[in-house]
Amino acid sequence: MYDFEHTIDRSKTDSVKWDIADNELPMWVADMDFQVAPEIVEAIKNKADQAVFGYEEPHADYFNAVAEWYETEHHFRPKTDWMMFVTGVVPAISSIVRRISSVGDNVLVQAPVYNIFYNSIVNNGRHVLSNDLVFDDGKYHIDFADLERKLSDPLTTLMILCNPHNPVGKIWSRDDLSKIAELCNKHNVKLLSDEIHGDITFNEDGYTPVFSLPEDLIQNVMVTVSPSKTFNVAALHAATIIVPNENLRNQVNRGINSEELAEPNSFAIPATIAAYTKGHDWLKALKQQLMTNRTLVEDFLKSELPETKLIKSDATYLLWIDTKNISDDSEELANFIRKETGLYLSAGSVYGGDGTDFLRMNIACPESSVRNGLSRLKKGIELFLKK
Amino acid sequence: MYDFEHTIDRSKTDSVKWDIADNELPMWVADMDFQVAPEIVEAIKNKADQAVFGYEEPHADYFNAVAEWYETEHHFRPKTDWMMFVTGVVPAISSIVRRISSVGDNVLVQAPVYNIFYNSIVNNGRHVLSNDLVFDDGKYHIDFADLERKLSDPLTTLMILCNPHNPVGKIWSRDDLSKIAELCNKHNVKLLSDEIHGDITFNEDGYTPVFSLPEDLIQNVMVTVSPSKTFNVAALHAATIIVPNENLRNQVNRGINSEELAEPNSFAIPATIAAYTKGHDWLKALKQQLMTNRTLVEDFLKSELPETKLIKSDATYLLWIDTKNISDDSEELANFIRKETGLYLSAGSVYGGDGTDFLRMNIACPESSVRNGLSRLKKGIELFLKK
Repeated sequence: MYDFEHTIDRSKTDSVKWDIADNELPMWVADMDFQVAPEIVEAIKNKADQAVFGYEEPHADYFNAVAEWYETEHHFRPKTDWMMFVTGVVPAISSIVRRISSVGDNVLVQAPVYNIFYNSIVNNGRHVLSNDLVFDDGKYHIDFADLERKLSDPLTTLMILCNPHNPVGKIWSRDDLSKIAELCNKHNVKLLSDEIHGDITFNEDGYTPVFSLPEDLIQNVMVTVSPSKTFNVAALHAATIIVPNENLRNQVNRGINSEELAEPNSFAIPATIAAYTKGHDWLKALKQQLMTNRTLVEDFLKSELPETKLIKSDATYLLWIDTKNISDDSEELANFIRKETGLYLSAGSVYGGDGTDFLRMNIACPESSVRNGLSRLKKGIELFLKK
Repeated sequence: MYDFEHTIDRSKTDSVKWDIADNELPMWVADMDFQVAPEIVEAIKNKADQAVFGYEEPHADYFNAVAEWYETEHHFRPKTDWMMFVTGVVPAISSIVRRISSVGDNVLVQAPVYNIFYNSIVNNGRHVLSNDLVFDDGKYHIDFADLERKLSDPLTTLMILCNPHNPVGKIWSRDDLSKIAELCNKHNVKLLSDEIHGDITFNEDGYTPVFSLPEDLIQNVMVTVSPSKTFNVAALHAATIIVPNENLRNQVNRGINSEELAEPNSFAIPATIAAYTKGHDWLKALKQQLMTNRTLVEDFLKSELPETKLIKSDATYLLWIDTKNISDDSEELANFIRKETGLYLSAGSVYGGDGTDFLRMNIACPESSVRNGLSRLKKGIELFLKK
C-alpha cells in the first residue's frame, strides 16, 4: 500500500543527512529516507495552490487533531487548552531551559541521551547533571536513589526526560514515569518530557505520555510532541508543547513568544493536521517495515558479527549496538568505519554516559540500504580488528 | 501578465490579518492580499513532490541568489560570506538584541517606528531610547544632534534602524545612512538595519542597503533582508542576516544557532531562490499596482477627506495618513472607525513618537478593496466628526 523501498536521491541537495562524500551511506542523523504519507504531500500542495503566505496562527482544528491523535494512538486525550504550537521540539527545549531555569542551575538528564539536550543546556549557561542510566545484563534501568540525590540539589531546577529514550530505545513504564514525576514534585524540579519518538513503538501497549499521569503528578510537567519523527517531517517545523498547569504554561508561552518560536510557517498547520488525521495507516505500515529492518539487523549481527550485541528495544528507528568487545572508543571506531567503508553511523560517545561502548544506527531506510549498511559494517569491524 | 485583482478569501482560515468579524475589511498588518508569483508556487510544489522533509541547511545556491538579487535590484553585490540564513527578520532582531546588547542597556530606535521593535527590546529586558523623527512641513527628518547625544550614552549599545522606514515610508539617503553609521562607529554602538521593505520603492534610485556603504563604515553593521514583504511570503519563514565584519557575524551566528533560528524549513530555501531568481518581473508589476492604489487613495483623500493628509513617501505598501485635524488620539479614532464601519486600520499610536496623530493603511490589496476601504474611511471619519 505504501512504498518503503524506493525513495529520492538526496545527495547533492540541502539535506544534512546526505551531505556526504560520494559512495558514503548515511545512517546517522534521525530523519528517514522514506517518502512521507501521500496525504501530507497533498495538504502541502493544496496550501501552495492558495498562493497567499501571510502571517498565520493555529486554530482549534490543529489542537483537536493533536488531541485526537493521542486519544486514538495512545489512549489518552490531552486537553486542547494545555497545548501551544511551537516551531520544533529542540526550539521548545532550548526555550524552556532559558525560561524555566536560571543561569548556573543544574539541568538533569539521563545519559546516554539525545546529544542536543547537552547543547540546549550548555549553550544557555546551565550545567548538565546526569543520572546515568544503569546498563545491566543487556538492559537499561534507572538508579532512583541517585536520581533523588541529584534532584534534591537545590541548584537542580529542571529535568529533561527522553520518553521513549533515544538512543537506547527504552519505553519507560507508567510506574517508572510516576516515580520520576513524584521525585520531581517532591524536590520542586520542573519535568520536561521529550516524547518525539512516542509514536514509533513496537511493543503491544505503546508508550505512556507523561501528561496522562494522575492530575497531582502533572502540575510540574511539560511535554513536547511532534509529527517530525513519526512522519519524517523534521523540516516542517511543527511541534506542540503540552503543559497541564496554567501558570507553568503561561511562562513557557511567554518564552516561545519572546523568542519568535510560536508562529507556524504556511505548511506546518495543514500538514500536521493531515498527518494526525489521515496518517494512522501509514504509521502502521511504517512500523511493519521498521520491524523487518530491525530483524534483518538482529539476524545479521548474530550470525556475522557476534562480537557486537544489539540492545533489545521497543521504540525508535535508532538501533543501539554494543561494540565494547571491539573498542571502548566509539568515536574512533565510528570514524574508522566511515573512513574505510563509507558507512556513517553515530558514535555513541556523543550521547554521554556509557556511549563510548556503543554505535547508533538509523534503520529508517529501504531494506536494500540496510543490507548495504550491514555489509559495510562487517567489513569495517573486520578491518578494525585486524589493525 | 499577473493578476492583482482577484485573490483567495482568507476569512475563516488561520490568517492573522483576516481573523476578523464578518463584514470587516482588514487593512492593518503588513501582509498582502495578492497571490504570490507563480514561480514561487511552482518551487514549493516541486519540493512537495520530493516528499522527504528531513533536516536541511542552505548551500551556495541560496546565498548566490540573495547576492544576485541585490546586485540586480540594488546595484551592490553583498559577499555571500557575509550572510546567514535565519527564520525571519523579527526572530533575527530579537536574537541580536539578546546577543549583542546586555540586560539593562538602551536600544535606540527612531519613533514612530515598526511596533515589534519595542517588543524585541522590552521583552528582553532592555530599554527603548528613541531619537524621535522630526515631522516638519509634511516630511520626516532626523535630528542628528539628538541622535548623537543618545548614542553617546554609554548604556546605548545597539541602534535599530528601519531602512526604508516603516511606517512613514521614508527612504533614507546615502548621506543620512553614512552619518548614522559614522555616529554609531564613533560611540561604539552596533547598528542593526532592518531592510525588509527595501525592495518596494517607487522613486527612481531605489534604496541604499547599509552594507553598500564604504568598508570602514560597515564594521559595526548588521543588516536583515527577506523576501517576505516583497513577495508576500511572511509565513515562508525565510530571511538573511548580512554582517560584513567576521567577528560580529560569528557572535550573531552563535545567537541564532543557540536559539534554534538558523535552520530552514523544507520550503524556505527553494521558494526564496525562486523569488530572487525569477521574481523581478512580478515585483515590477506589483509596484505598478501599488502606485495605482496609492494614487487612488491620494486623490480620494484630497477630494473627499480634506481634513486628512497623506504623507508623501517613496517606499512600502503602508500609507501614513495624518489625522491630527480629526483627533490627537489615533487609537480612539481607529477603534471608532473599525466599530462603525468595519475598516481595520493600524492606529499610529502603536508606533510611538507622533503616531497618535496618524493612521496606517495597508494598500496591498485589489483596487476594489482599496475603494471599499476608502468609502468606509470617509463614513467613519464623518461619523467621528459628528460625535
